Order: sequence, then C-alpha cells, then structure tokens
Amino acid sequence: MAPNKARRIAVLASGGDAPGMNACLRAVVRAGCDAGMEILGVRRGFSGLIAGEMSALGRRDVGNIIQRGGIVLGTSRCEELHTPEGRSKAARSLREAGVDALVVMGGDGSFRGAWALVQETGACCLGIPATIDNDVYGTDFSLGFDTAVNTALESIDRIRDTADSLERPFFVEVMGRSSGAIALEVGLAGGAQDVVVPETPTNVEELCAGLQEGFRRGRRSGIIVVAEGDEAGGAFILAREVGRCINTEYRVVVLGHVQRGGAPTARDRVLGAKLGAAAVDALVAGEENVMVGEVGGRVTLTPLREVSERVKQTDEALLHLVHRLTH
Amino acid sequence: MAPNKARRIAVLASGGDAPGMNACLRAVVRAGCDAGMEILGVRRGFSGLIAGEMSALGRRDVGNIIQRGGIVLGTSRCEELHTPEGRSKAARSLREAGVDALVVMGGDGSFRGAWALVQETGACCLGIPATIDNDVYGTDFSLGFDTAVNTALESIDRIRDTADSLERPFFVEVMGRSSGAIALEVGLAGGAQDVVVPETPTNVEELCAGLQEGFRRGRRSGIIVVAEGDEAGGAFILAREVGRCINTEYRVVVLGHVQRGGAPTARDRVLGAKLGAAAVDALVAGEENVMVGEVGGRVTLTPLREVSERVKQTDEALLHLVHRLTH
Amino acid sequence: MAPNKARRIAVLASGGDAPGMNACLRAVVRAGCDAGMEILGVRRGFSGLIAGEMSALGRRDVGNIIQRGGIVLGTSRCEELHTPEGRSKAARSLREAGVDALVVMGGDGSFRGAWALVQETGACCLGIPATIDNDVYGTDFSLGFDTAVNTALESIDRIRDTADSLERPFFVEVMGRSSGAIALEVGLAGGAQDVVVPETPTNVEELCAGLQEGFRRGRRSGIIVVAEGDEAGGAFILAREVGRCINTEYRVVVLGHVQRGGAPTARDRVLGAKLGAAAVDALVAGEENVMVGEVGGRVTLTPLREVSERVKQTDEALLHLVHRLTH
Amino acid sequence: MAPNKARRIAVLASGGDAPGMNACLRAVVRAGCDAGMEILGVRRGFSGLIAGEMSALGRRDVGNIIQRGGIVLGTSRCEELHTPEGRSKAARSLREAGVDALVVMGGDGSFRGAWALVQETGACCLGIPATIDNDVYGTDFSLGFDTAVNTALESIDRIRDTADSLERPFFVEVMGRSSGAIALEVGLAGGAQDVVVPETPTNVEELCAGLQEGFRRGRRSGIIVVAEGDEAGGAFILAREVGRCINTEYRVVVLGHVQRGGAPTARDRVLGAKLGAAAVDALVAGEENVMVGEVGGRVTLTPLREVSERVKQTDEALLHLVHRLTH
Repeated sequence: MAPNKARRIAVLASGGDAPGMNACLRAVVRAGCDAGMEILGVRRGFSGLIAGEMSALGRRDVGNIIQRGGIVLGTSRCEELHTPEGRSKAARSLREAGVDALVVMGGDGSFRGAWALVQETGACCLGIPATIDNDVYGTDFSLGFDTAVNTALESIDRIRDTADSLERPFFVEVMGRSSGAIALEVGLAGGAQDVVVPETPTNVEELCAGLQEGFRRGRRSGIIVVAEGDEAGGAFILAREVGRCINTEYRVVVLGHVQRGGAPTARDRVLGAKLGAAAVDALVAGEENVMVGEVGGRVTLTPLREVSERVKQTDEALLHLVHRLTH
Repeated sequence: MAPNKARRIAVLASGGDAPGMNACLRAVVRAGCDAGMEILGVRRGFSGLIAGEMSALGRRDVGNIIQRGGIVLGTSRCEELHTPEGRSKAARSLREAGVDALVVMGGDGSFRGAWALVQETGACCLGIPATIDNDVYGTDFSLGFDTAVNTALESIDRIRDTADSLERPFFVEVMGRSSGAIALEVGLAGGAQDVVVPETPTNVEELCAGLQEGFRRGRRSGIIVVAEGDEAGGAFILAREVGRCINTEYRVVVLGHVQRGGAPTARDRVLGAKLGAAAVDALVAGEENVMVGEVGGRVTLTPLREVSERVKQTDEALLHLVHRLTH
Repeated sequence: MAPNKARRIAVLASGGDAPGMNACLRAVVRAGCDAGMEILGVRRGFSGLIAGEMSALGRRDVGNIIQRGGIVLGTSRCEELHTPEGRSKAARSLREAGVDALVVMGGDGSFRGAWALVQETGACCLGIPATIDNDVYGTDFSLGFDTAVNTALESIDRIRDTADSLERPFFVEVMGRSSGAIALEVGLAGGAQDVVVPETPTNVEELCAGLQEGFRRGRRSGIIVVAEGDEAGGAFILAREVGRCINTEYRVVVLGHVQRGGAPTARDRVLGAKLGAAAVDALVAGEENVMVGEVGGRVTLTPLREVSERVKQTDEALLHLVHRLTH
Repeated sequence: MAPNKARRIAVLASGGDAPGMNACLRAVVRAGCDAGMEILGVRRGFSGLIAGEMSALGRRDVGNIIQRGGIVLGTSRCEELHTPEGRSKAARSLREAGVDALVVMGGDGSFRGAWALVQETGACCLGIPATIDNDVYGTDFSLGFDTAVNTALESIDRIRDTADSLERPFFVEVMGRSSGAIALEVGLAGGAQDVVVPETPTNVEELCAGLQEGFRRGRRSGIIVVAEGDEAGGAFILAREVGRCINTEYRVVVLGHVQRGGAPTARDRVLGAKLGAAAVDALVAGEENVMVGEVGGRVTLTPLREVSERVKQTDEALLHLVHRLTH
C-alpha cells in the first residue's frame, strides 16, 4: 500500500452538467467505501467547495441515481477558480475538511483550474473527463458525449420528417463551442448532407454547390449540421448566406440545452462506472494529479499537467466520410 | 345509397406537416378502397393540386407508413390557394382528374382556403383536422397535437436535469403562434413554474414575484414555458426582462421544428385511423363540405363554413391548474 | 362550506403501479395544502395502511416526481383488504390517525375493497382510477393507460423491423387480464394484422384465413396482438395453433412488466393533475364515497358503489376498424 | 491498383437482423459507387443468394434508410449454407451474376459458412460483423450491439419503477445464447443487483445470499439480469429456484425480440458507415476473405479463417464491477 494513500476524499462536478456524472458519482462513492475511504460530496462545484458546502456520502446515498441526467450534487462554472484567491480559498476548504484528495468531474477548463490549484497549493486532485463536448485530451470519450450525440440524433431524425415533407434544407445547430465532435458524429449518423465545424474553414460556395448538386439529382430536402462554434457564425448566419446564394427557402433549428440532459445512454453509464472505480483505484495506488480516461478500450492515467496543456484532436476523417456517403 | 356519393376522391396534406397524417392517409385509402372508391394522392398540398401532381393509391401503397412522422405525400403552404386564380386552377385540376371530392388534412388556414374553394367553384371538400397547434374549431384534438406535446415534454424533462444541476430558471419556447394549447399541456405535464400564452395578458411582475417566491422557499431552478406567439414577444425577450427585473442568470431554449416530427403517439395514430375512416363514411353517406372531428370521444361533422369562421377556445383552466400545483 | 368537510386526508396507491400516479399524488398534496388540509401519505397501499405506515406530506415532498413512473409511496396487492378483519384493521388505522377521508388511487379490485370498507366501517373514501388496464367504470381513461399503450406501441414498432426483415408473423402479447383495451389501441396504432381480445370469441380459423390472405397478396410478415387474458390462452398457445394450422414459422414476444413503468406521457400527467385536484375539490365540496373520472373531456363523480358493481365496456368498434384497415 | 480488384460486388445480410445494417448497406453502396463498382443487393440472405434473388443498387436506392432498424434487403438463417450442396449453389449464383466479391453482414455462424464457401468454391468473401450478441472475434463491437444494449436498458429503467413500487426482485432475461455481453453491459448500466451469464458458473446460493444481504440493508427490490443462454436455464427457472430458496415473491420479464429492432443508436450508425466504407476500401486494395472490424478505435482486417475459428472473450471484469458497485 502506498504511504500517501488517500483516506478521505471529496468529489465534485464542475462546469456544465453531463449525463453519466451520476453513474460516475455512484461508482466513486461505492468503490471508495469498499476501499475504506470516507467520501464527501461537494455541492455546486468549486463555488460550493470555496463556500465549504460538503457532506458525507454513503453507499445508500447514491442509490437510484444511475439513470438520471444532470448531477445530484449540482455544478457551477466558478469564476473564482480561475483566480489565485479563489484557489487559495478552495485549498483551505479542503484542508479544513481534512480532505486528502479531490476528485473533479469536468472538462478541460476545470482541469486547467485544478492543475493551477495543485501547483499553487499542493492540493491533490484527480480528474474524470465529463463534458458533452468530448474535447478533453487523454481520453477517447468523455462522459456525456454519447448521450448528447444520441439526443441530437433523435432530434435530427424528427426534423428530417418535416424536411422531407416540406422539401427544404434545414440547418441544425448542435453544441460544440470549440469542437466539432458532436456535429461530426451526428452528421454522419444522421445522414446529413454536410457538416460545418470550427476545426476546418467553412467554404460557403462549396456548401452551396453541394446543395445544388443534390437539387439536380432530385433531392430537395437535406440536413446541414452546424457546430455552434463554427467560425462562419452559427446556423442562422450560415443559413442566411446559403439561402441568399442559392435562392432557396430554409429552416433553422438550434438544439441547445436539450442536448445536455436526459437519462444517460448505456455507454455513458458504463464509462462512468469504469472511470469512477478507476479513480478510486488510482488513489489507492497512490497516484496523484492525474486524469483517468479510456483510450482504445483501456483505462489510462494522464498527468493533469498534460491534460491542461494539450489539445484533443477531432477526428476529421469523419467529415470526409460524411461527404463520401452523402446522396 | 346517396345519389351524389363520391366515386373518385383525391387526398392531400396542407400547411405544416403533423404526425399522424400518414396513419390518416392509410385509413382514407384503405377505407376508401373498401367502399369501392378510387383514391388519388396529391403531392405537395394545394401547390401540387394546382400543378396536377396526382397519382392513384392502392391499399399496398400505404403499407408500413403508419409509424412515420411527416407525410409521404409531401405538403406545402400554398399562397395561391388564398387567391381566386389559384382556387380556380385547383378546381380545374379536380375537374380534369374527374375527382368527386377532395379530402384535405390541414389546419384552420387550409380550411378557410378550402371553404373559399367550395363557395367559388362548387368543388366538394372534406376536412380532417391535422395541425400540432390544436387550434381548429370543431374537434377536441387535431392530428399531431398529442405527439408534439409529448416531444416537447421529453425535451423539458431533459432540460430540467440541467436546470436543477445549474440552479437557474430556463425559459422554454414551444410552438403555437396564436394558440397556447401546446404550452399549457406541456407546462402542466412538465411541472413548469409558469406558462405564458397568447390568450391571456402576460404580467411580467407577477411572473417575477412567483419566481422570487420560489427562491425564498429554496427552489432556485424552474421551467417557464412560453408559447411562441405570446404577445410579450417570445422566450428571449421575456427572459431578458425577467432576468433584469429579478437580477438572475437564466437560459433560453427554443424547441422549434423538433416538435413537428417523429413517430406519432398511439393517440395520434388511433385518431388518424378513426378520422380517416370517418371521412370516407361521411362521403359514402353523401356528406359534403364538412370537417370530421372528435368531440367528447365521438366522431362529429362540422360544416366547413363554421370551421372557417369560428375560433376554438383554449382551455384556460389548465393555466389556473398550473399555478395551483406549482411549488 | 360543507359541515363534513375533510380536514385531514390520507392518500395511498393500491394494486399494480401505473404511470401518472406520482403526478396525481403531487396534485392531491398540493391542492390539498392549498385547501388547508393536512395530507398523510400511506406507504405500500392497504397493507401499509393496516400496519399504520403513514407520514405527513408537504408541498416540497412531492417536488420533482411528476415525471417518474411507479409511485413513490409504494403499492401492494393487499389480500387482507378483501376480508372483514383486514378492513376493520384499516378503519382502525384511519381512526387512530384522525383521518377524515382516504384517497385511493387504484383499479376496480381496489374500489370494490374500498366500497366494502365504506359500507362496513363508515370510513369515507374517494377513488381515483389508476390502472394501465383501463377497465374501471366511470371514466374514459384511467391513469397509466396512455403510457402503457405508447410503451407497447414502441415495442411493436421495433418488432416490426425484425418481422419485416425475417418475413415472419409475430404474436405479441400485451397486458390485459380481463380487458382488451390495451390490445385494441396498440393493434390499431401499430398496424397489426389482427387483434385477439377476451371480450370477443377468438376464431382461429378466421385468423389463419386472414394471414393466408395476406400471404397471397405478398405480405409475409405481420403482427398479431394478443391480450394476455384472451380465452384462447395467450400468445404462445395461440401462435402454436396458428403455426400448425397454416404451417408457418412464427415468433412470440410477451411484453410483460415493461408496459407498467417509465416516465408517464403528457396525457397521463395532465389527467393525474386534473383528477388529483378534482378529488380535493370533491372533498372540499363535501362529497363522499365517489370516484372522480373524466368522461367526454369533463371531470365527473361516480358513486363508488356504482364503480364497484358495473363493468366498463370495451370499445369493440376499434376491432372492426383494425380489420377494415389491415392490408 | 491491385490486379484482382473487384468490379462487381454483391451484398447480403445473414442471420438475425441487427440495427445498423441499413447504415452499413448505405455505406457499402455509396462508397462502392464512388469506387466505380457495380453493387448487387441480395434479398433474404444466403437463401436469396441460392435462389438468385439479386438486383442492382444505386446511390438513391439507399437514401432515407440510415435511421431504420432491421435490414431492407431482408435476411434469413439459411440451413443450406451449412451443407456443401448449398454452398455450391451459392457459388454458382455468384458466378452466374458475374460477382467478384460477396460482402456478408452477419455473425460468427454466417462467417463460418462464408469461410467454408471460400474454401470449397474459391468465392471471394468479405465480412462485416453485425449481430446484437457482440460475440464475433476480431472486433470490439459488432453492429447492433449498442442499440440492443440501450433498448434493453430502457426496459430495465421502466421495470425498476415497478420493482421499487412493489418492493420485489425482478428477473430480466436479455438476449445472448452463448454470450453474456448484453447482460453485462445492461447489468452494469442498469444498476442491477446481479448478472448471470453463460461464461461463468452460476452459484444460486451466492445469488440468494446477495439478495438477502440487500434485504437486511432495507433494499427489497432489485433487478437480476439473466442472459438467455445461462447454463442455470434462463430467467424463469432461476427465479423459481431463488424464490424457493429465500422465500420471496418475484417477477420475471423476458425482453425477447424487442431488443433486435428500432432505430439504431448513433454509435451503430457511425460504425456501420465506417465498416461499410472500409469494406469497399479493402476490396479496392485487393484484400480477400477478411472481416473488417474496429479494435481500439481503429479499423482492422482479420482473416475470415481466424474469425471462424476463434472465440471472442467476454469482458468478465464487468461482472466484478457490477458486484463492487451494487447496493
């Protein structure tokens, strides 16, 4: 047994909520209890940590939550985490509560904050990637991505009924401020005519040419999936440009927050269970300041420093595949 | 047998598509075949009728469509229908195809057009109420309403996960340009804190007071459902006013066209089957220029004239019930 | 105000759970609080009542349950309710807790028990119809029916994919021990080839003839919906007979308890809200020993005696419509 | 360009249908057209191949199928494939149609048949793993598995509502004749109390002890997931034994064919697109008699011989994780 093994851990969610966080919390608590740890649940993310809002969690406290979206602890985007004063307060809360290690479920912003907290205060942090955007370095998938993709896809299946009936192109904006990950999966799975993502320059002329080519082949409807962070400016702006360029009526749908919630898919629950248990295992093994992830089907540990510095690559081959398979 | 019994009928969808239209089309075609009629399917609504786009439909042609959203015939909002020239062309198409009666699946705008067509050209029309807005006089429910409500409700269930996790009010805009019918059902079923509809004046101060009352009781999240046609100006405008007034962060989601599509609910399919068969029965009985509907669980016939002149009342008692049951 | 107005009421669920019970409980509690009543929630139905398992419920205790299936109070099929001794114990529990009226969410068996309780002990009971079987006299729909039908329909939509791919008839058994209500709605909405219900004699020869007629027209797959209580013996027995008779391979699926659970549909939540509030209104108005229901879209009160003695008629016209619209 | 590059290919589905097959067919056809190939679609699997039921497929023929369950070509379990005569007839069909390569979507039984066909007749086959059982060697996931798991999980979420309300254990049988893959994922994701699979001996006493331990902690309900092929004999037999042993009431649900159908998940559609395009790429590169798969997130090729001889290992670590995280 490692000498610095954690005995009391705290767990929080940070940033946007993601389906699967509850399944992961359940795993952290139950695997932690099994390992003889005490577990504190922190309310409302780093904001709650700074305010000292924590309470003990036992096995039964996390019963009947595995199927729920959101996160029962609450979460927040905490501005203070990104200031030295805030981090100092967070560290004091951890010390006062006698916490040996803090488990953070969150995205890359949260991990940058956690890494600064580690460096400045000597706190021990352990990360679990949880964000629907799937833009965290060090894991193939983050919690919530699979659910968000399936939710967006259901919406697109519905929209296609109307697009086919009205014979019009629909521009559908999905989440992803800096990443086209959701857009690409949804576009490929939804049989979209095109997908527009921030990672590649958007060529409106080519997009228009593709639509017109479809028109010529007799296809009057079609779905164009737009990542919200695309540099061309989101679905409304893009649609207006295209509509003007090829003189067609169109519709715009912005899926928005619907993509965040809902019962997690099997995959997000299984991933949550695996990563939660792996986080506890890592702490038992004396690991510090790493993020647990899954790469190529295996659990991995990546230093938080590396996670906070490096950028996950989007699989642009998917975009090529969309084009290859469209009409 | 009535002397003026229809022998050849045409069927079309008009206006926005609505889930259940396909189930209804199937019923019209199959019950019509059973009654010895010939059935012509018209493509793209009145636009297609004017252009003469019709083809014969047999029993097998409507197999495996009962579960599909949209309408396989296509539909359109036809501006020409609202001009005497357009209606004259439509009547000519019907005459040239030897059509004895035209079955129109649509909403109140389409029925006003159909009634004008009847008056001006002597065409025989039979209406079937099909619009997610449920704002057609002469029926408790129109095709598509139940599906749209359930789709919007699923979205609200998802959004609540995030609202609870972030502890913020969410303003959710649902469809309904002149009717709060969807908003009221969704708001009541979704446990909304408040519902804002075009039928009643929106009192922003009261809305704010209700939210603050909730805050005092410890409830920081909450869903406010906004009908798109509310005179206060839709969810974005309302949310900004409320947010300023009570100084809170908030989120806005506009559900949009997602509400139109998707596999119809059982109720919309059963209603489609009943109304489609009843339309054929009415024609066999020699009825003309009526709309079939369901009132109090029974099939009814209402003159198209009355349908086109009168306004369906929204059940405002639902709004009172929302307020009575909220937190 | 009526002199015998209830001041303290108890509420319980009895028999099988039904989606919408939670929405109804929420309405009883909140409308009751509004009316100045004290509300006791009884655990595990009449079994819990006899054992005295009750506790006070306030407005906040029923927050965030409107969307959940099952019933948070628990329920039971209580054998003791059907004995004089059991009813005497139940009445004593009510007296000891100072309960003025007992609200029972349940089906016809529960209402027969409640009516016996009323007659023998002078207890005041108020019924709310809640059973997926929709076989309660005095209401068009009971809570849970709409959800169960939609759940079964989703399953049938899935099964049809396989039936079409394998080109085989599938016999699908749905719930309904003495009533074909679910089977008829699901069969009509699912485009079933035939529906077999306990209310009408099942003619295996006609069923086989219908299937063979379909084969001749080139349709090799098809769904036959079987109510579990059909006198021909359920899907397995019927399928074996048919398979032997027309020498075809087939598959059998028994949907079972899946139909009971899940988030309630909009309709079941709205009905739960209406009936729960109406139950409180009835008590405030001094009503006793009635069941609230909805007939033709309006809330009605029916004496419990009548509910316990009369039998709801199944809408057999639906069966005729299934046959009229099949292939 | 490889000299033996295929110019005309045929594609079929074999064995049980699996969601994602249509997405895969679409990809084979469209990527094949792009590569200048002619594509023949074979109806009803190897039975249809033997009977010569093939027709040309173009890009438009596979439009609007990506979201559908089942397989539009039809499929069959063909006994003749497992006889030399049958294989000889299949080879003749391929020769007569001038087919250079046959693409087979199916499971391990189909690949054993295909490998025998290759060896005996010199036909060129290319496999794509498609079976909800996920028991094919050479790929992490086969088409349909993710959808089947999510469908079963939805059912379990529903059943838990009732299990909690009635406070009874439920035994839920999921598909998997020789593999516990579905059972393990569903059990872990569904928060099951235990999972029973064919890969490990089932110890009824331990299962009972686990349930009783739960009872002692106050948990009266619970889901036990049973793979249909478990050597203890399926859910009914196991439940009876357990019920007798610990003297408790219980319920049994057999999910059955519902698990096969339905719109594929995003993951199954994306996998279908990738594997379908990869199959064409492999043929363009001159590959023969291999199966395309995905291992660790990358497309791989495995010789059909190896696929037909080796057994995929189930991830039994999941079973350990279920036990670690249960109550």
